[in-house]
Amino acid sequence: MSTPPSSERSASRERSSRLPARPGIAGMEPYGAPQLDVPHLLNVNENPYPPSAEVVETIARDVAAAAGGLNRYPNREFLALRSDLADYLATESGVRVAPEQVWAANGSNEVMLHLLQAFGGPGRAALSFAPTYSMYPEYARDTLTEWIAGRRETDFTVDPDVATAAVLEHQPSVILLTSPNNPTGTTLPSSTVRAVCEAALAVDVDGAPAVVVVDEAYGEFRRDGVPSAMELLSTYPNLAVSRTMSKAFALAGARVGYLAASRDLVDVLRVVRLPYHLSAVTQAVARAALKHSATLLAQVDALRAERDATVEWLRSRQLAGVPLEVADTDANFVLFGSFDDRHAVWQGLLDRGVLIRETGPDGWLRVSIGTPQDMVAFKDALVEVAGL
Amino acid sequence: MSTPPSSERSASRERSSRLPARPGIAGMEPYGAPQLDVPHLLNVNENPYPPSAEVVETIARDVAAAAGGLNRYPNREFLALRSDLADYLATESGVRVAPEQVWAANGSNEVMLHLLQAFGGPGRAALSFAPTYSMYPEYARDTLTEWIAGRRETDFTVDPDVATAAVLEHQPSVILLTSPNNPTGTTLPSSTVRAVCEAALAVDVDGAPAVVVVDEAYGEFRRDGVPSAMELLSTYPNLAVSRTMSKAFALAGARVGYLAASRDLVDVLRVVRLPYHLSAVTQAVARAALKHSATLLAQVDALRAERDATVEWLRSRQLAGVPLEVADTDANFVLFGSFDDRHAVWQGLLDRGVLIRETGPDGWLRVSIGTPQDMVAFKDALVEVAGL
Repeated sequence: MSTPPSSERSASRERSSRLPARPGIAGMEPYGAPQLDVPHLLNVNENPYPPSAEVVETIARDVAAAAGGLNRYPNREFLALRSDLADYLATESGVRVAPEQVWAANGSNEVMLHLLQAFGGPGRAALSFAPTYSMYPEYARDTLTEWIAGRRETDFTVDPDVATAAVLEHQPSVILLTSPNNPTGTTLPSSTVRAVCEAALAVDVDGAPAVVVVDEAYGEFRRDGVPSAMELLSTYPNLAVSRTMSKAFALAGARVGYLAASRDLVDVLRVVRLPYHLSAVTQAVARAALKHSATLLAQVDALRAERDATVEWLRSRQLAGVPLEVADTDANFVLFGSFDDRHAVWQGLLDRGVLIRETGPDGWLRVSIGTPQDMVAFKDALVEVAGL
Repeated sequence: MSTPPSSERSASRERSSRLPARPGIAGMEPYGAPQLDVPHLLNVNENPYPPSAEVVETIARDVAAAAGGLNRYPNREFLALRSDLADYLATESGVRVAPEQVWAANGSNEVMLHLLQAFGGPGRAALSFAPTYSMYPEYARDTLTEWIAGRRETDFTVDPDVATAAVLEHQPSVILLTSPNNPTGTTLPSSTVRAVCEAALAVDVDGAPAVVVVDEAYGEFRRDGVPSAMELLSTYPNLAVSRTMSKAFALAGARVGYLAASRDLVDVLRVVRLPYHLSAVTQAVARAALKHSATLLAQVDALRAERDATVEWLRSRQLAGVPLEVADTDANFVLFGSFDDRHAVWQGLLDRGVLIRETGPDGWLRVSIGTPQDMVAFKDALVEVAGL
């Protein structure tokens, strides 16, 4: 066999080291905010309070019990956890659903993936209202669903007529409403969610209406009197309300997201989930934390108070004689602006050990609510950097 | 507003309760073997030995340590776990890879999903050789990849020429080789894996060769002298070797699958993973178990011996004067047959407290290797039911 010329050899070598990443994936960077080691982590809306000694003890004890049976696959239906989540939702929202109406996965991002795997796909579209959570387009990409960004008003609310028109125009199979919205903190009144659910019923996707998903990842932080879309579940079989244990339960590291919906809707998600997607350990950790929900929700009250104080403080500051703009917020973060050079402000805060997030409309920044100490550091740094 | 006639009202009610499940999902049942509570669970290839007291203690201690920081998101890159897995692979296979060449996810089924999300998709095909693992078509469905079942020989081996021809004919973007194969137990010699890798290099998928995935979920159970495809990693940048902690590590309940491949291949998987897909608890549990790998692999030796004894026993039995057929196996299960009515045999065993799996070619049954007590119960029941 003759040796090919060296240019051919190197072309062949180059080709053999290529990989067939599919269109839409090739050349992309992995999603994610920087994970930096600084004193004040206020960039990914984590709960600043670590689980208490009591919570850690319950988790360790329940995981030890589960560990003895880890040679076996976990229960695929995890009805014990779904029942505990149903109980919690009944306490938190006043709306009682059956365990079979609850679904859970590894973080609410996997819940969203399941929803789009089930109801999205090629030739279908998901509609949301921007500015909103920056991961949604990735879920759409991963499920080959077209992503459509409808618009919010300049105060970040959703106009029910605008939303209805967008639903009827685009005929999406999935509509994502985020309430409280990330990164703006805005909640939607019941009347708006209702209007979108009605519009969804008028959509025709292969003979069925659209599914409406209300992402309430930050639901527990809403102000008194602000409703949850849980109240509309019994009216709309095409509605899902998603939640997470990452925020209110201070359990971001455990990856537990969940939703409540009609039993029929949950049954479709059961088809697309990978078998045994939720480990026995994750089930044990989630159930352990749920035993402490009363204590954990007391911390949420403290964070809500700190949030309201931060909003008030930001609204009292001026930038070159003009008051800062601060979005109304029902979440554990605040969006504020607008800065001519928001990156410089972000970098200046980081240089002072305070990591916040460069997200939202041009010129705006988002700060997560931390401990009182975190917020003092944030305010001091902001005054210094932005000259407030 | 006039009231619509009652037939219209009921049509509208019926329509509003429909859901837009996408084609391919609508009307499907969730995947999964029955989860029954019987004395001898020999149906899903679990390791019958629960984690020892020492392993449980390490898991509980390490999870308690991780629990104190669960309010924070887990490390997205989990390089500590990837480094531990690389160390383990070096010990087990003799092949050293860098931590950045290792990837992990919630079970090897999520690893496979990542592979097909990255390299499959509409207009692309995944090729495997049947009979093989029954979940593969589901991963293909979930990623909208065409599923092609190539064929194995009647002794369940893969003929390298047949495989090469199938690769060149179908031009798949992903080729799945399973070794040891599920449900047959068959391993592939290095020469066959090599032939398929070479054929993959001749495929043209948008200008790149195909990716070859060797699923070695049962790799640790292979007989002495049987090679691992790990040895070929440095030769083929388009090769991935996947493993799991479910079987050899007796950790099915913890959901930890992983693979080794070129750094470039792993980097594409990083794009499609959901951010923070591997919880801090899962990372802690996996690392805790890896500390005990020597002890756990000693158990694998006992299971291999039990497996070989089971094969020998089955081969010594006759069915109506004809010796039972038993597939050569390098896994922790044995495929045997053939029965005129395999369902009756399966049911008869179940009635006697022994749950095995009705899978593989018509007439064959698969039994997982359990404890010596499990295997006595299996043999006694089989003699009684099948009249061996």
